[in-house]
Amino acid sequence: MVIATIIGDTRTTKLFYGHYDVMNPGDITEWDNDPFILKKDRGRYWGRGTGDNKGQLLAVIFGLYMYKELHRTFPFSIQLVIEGEEEQGSPHLKAAITDAKKMLHDVDSTFVIDGSINQLGEHILRLGNRGALGLALTANTALRDNHSGNMGNVMDNAAIKLINILNKVYDFSQHRVLIPDFYEGVREPNQQEKEWIAALPYEKEIIKKQTGVKKLPPNNKEYYHKLMFEPTFNISGMNAGYSGKGIKTIIPHQATLKIDCRLVGSQNLTKIKKGLQQILREESDSNEFVVEYLVEVPASNTASNAPDVTKICKALKKIDGKALVEPVMPGTVPNYIWTDILKVPTYTLPLANFDQANHAVNENISKKAFVEGITLIYELVENLI
Amino acid sequence: MVIATIIGDTRTTKLFYGHYDVMNPGDITEWDNDPFILKKDRGRYWGRGTGDNKGQLLAVIFGLYMYKELHRTFPFSIQLVIEGEEEQGSPHLKAAITDAKKMLHDVDSTFVIDGSINQLGEHILRLGNRGALGLALTANTALRDNHSGNMGNVMDNAAIKLINILNKVYDFSQHRVLIPDFYEGVREPNQQEKEWIAALPYEKEIIKKQTGVKKLPPNNKEYYHKLMFEPTFNISGMNAGYSGKGIKTIIPHQATLKIDCRLVGSQNLTKIKKGLQQILREESDSNEFVVEYLVEVPASNTASNAPDVTKICKALKKIDGKALVEPVMPGTVPNYIWTDILKVPTYTLPLANFDQANHAVNENISKKAFVEGITLIYELVENLI
Repeated sequence: MVIATIIGDTRTTKLFYGHYDVMNPGDITEWDNDPFILKKDRGRYWGRGTGDNKGQLLAVIFGLYMYKELHRTFPFSIQLVIEGEEEQGSPHLKAAITDAKKMLHDVDSTFVIDGSINQLGEHILRLGNRGALGLALTANTALRDNHSGNMGNVMDNAAIKLINILNKVYDFSQHRVLIPDFYEGVREPNQQEKEWIAALPYEKEIIKKQTGVKKLPPNNKEYYHKLMFEPTFNISGMNAGYSGKGIKTIIPHQATLKIDCRLVGSQNLTKIKKGLQQILREESDSNEFVVEYLVEVPASNTASNAPDVTKICKALKKIDGKALVEPVMPGTVPNYIWTDILKVPTYTLPLANFDQANHAVNENISKKAFVEGITLIYELVENLI
Repeated sequence: MVIATIIGDTRTTKLFYGHYDVMNPGDITEWDNDPFILKKDRGRYWGRGTGDNKGQLLAVIFGLYMYKELHRTFPFSIQLVIEGEEEQGSPHLKAAITDAKKMLHDVDSTFVIDGSINQLGEHILRLGNRGALGLALTANTALRDNHSGNMGNVMDNAAIKLINILNKVYDFSQHRVLIPDFYEGVREPNQQEKEWIAALPYEKEIIKKQTGVKKLPPNNKEYYHKLMFEPTFNISGMNAGYSGKGIKTIIPHQATLKIDCRLVGSQNLTKIKKGLQQILREESDSNEFVVEYLVEVPASNTASNAPDVTKICKALKKIDGKALVEPVMPGTVPNYIWTDILKVPTYTLPLANFDQANHAVNENISKKAFVEGITLIYELVENLI
């Protein structure tokens, strides 16, 4: 991890976070150009890391450089935190930032520069993100599968056992999680957030095409409420017995379920895990049922009235003539490190174009997005004063 | 199919059913001997079909031959029905027997000679078998899987949809099928059947070792009641999304469940299918949910006081000194063809040893089982008069 300090006119410090590591390019022959030699062509810079995240990092550095050249000095100090494990899920970031807390004690806000601007080329300010709790549930009922005639009713079915347990965790007909206190901390958007959401684009046909989802909520209010202000209960995988062509009349001795819950507001991971253990105590004691925790990332929140929001919006308006704000990012990133460990508001500002093809072949950043990114960073510093 | 008629002293006819087709031997190098050259060694005849079912068929023919040699004539007529598609699930047997009904109209009972005698080498008379209804349920919610953050709450989860539907079919906490009229026709064993069950062996430790099941019912009454007089609801397979190592936070667009129900008594397949369609009408109309029927075999019943039971028991006693009767075979075979299409009582008499390794390498029939089988068939004819 690189931590670079630029001393400005005041001790007040803005932290900029990005990463220098990239995803494996995969089959290089699928790329139009060598993924590791930068190529400019058709108004874009092509190469691994151009969009995610070296190109965006460079725009940050160029934007700050431009400010320095014109103003000679910064109105505040700057910490550039650049890590090299983001693509592996930042396994050491929490520990590293906890260790570096003293060094970073003048930081009053973090700017995460990553992700994509929207399809219309408009920049977005993101204020928080949903957390995630990932689980694996496994039921065992025997040492092997058995014939469903020869042992049917005598041997317990692992899939039936698992669904029975699952029915204690989730009410399938009401679509409600039954874990005690699960919904504690879920909140409604405030007036400001509602206004921001009303201004967000909601292109149903484009979303349907991209996702293959046939039915979408009727309006952007409902759509973004579901994505930003409601927790999820998602079965990401389930497996037992034989699922090939036709049927094998066997009793499965093992069944597994993978579940991920996206968390919002101040939902409490520790309380939720405790609640789950409580309702599954009986099963967990049986040695025929195991719960594994695979993902544990709390939600991250930055208040809609956080100190720099208005200033950032001014900078965004300089670029797009308007300022789009997403109160919550629906996916999960470890922004809690800044909001919960460093205890400062966190602002995510993506700079790359929507079709940057990050993690895929022919990754790129458009010249337009790159130059606008540099300008946005310049305007950000100018307006943050 | 071969139908051989032996005219006896009366028109009353006993039908003997068996099959001449065998399973593929698989990797011949795994066999100790050529599977298609009969070898006698260590008190056993080795080769594909020795146990299932040519060896047993030969014992039937030799038993009848012995009777003929000693008595010159049969006290009744005999139909030998030998088919060549049993290992494929007898796809044409029902139609063939329906066609041949006129020719078989003097038949008053069918003897199915197939399967294994028990581990202690004792012969068994089986009077019926459980039927089976096999289903595949598939739910679709989109054209592809999606990221559980980006579309969580917006896209319906196919696994959740499917379990929600399944909860309308089966009460997981009470372990009861919720299909209307499902349990109609389930009956309790009568006094005679209870006595037969009380005489059946119940070697818990052997069963645990063979099946890997850790908990078994406390006594043979409960064990055999579950296997013979109760229908089952079995999830033989379930599959959705990602079930590999770790977790992939995706929303599955498709989920499938395979279910098989073993049916008992006079449970009615047509009524059950109708009941299922009724409770799933709403879902089936949505085009996002499909029910497929993969197996449909009714239970087969032969009454405990059927005309020949006492006579067959006398023949069994000649061999073993006692007569073990299983009122119902827990698995599913198409005996309904004899009881429901031909409308005659059906008696299953296995002749091969328990360790015959049918469908596996080194299939065999022990000389003891083969000779006892011949004797049993002789005694059967002698006692059926």
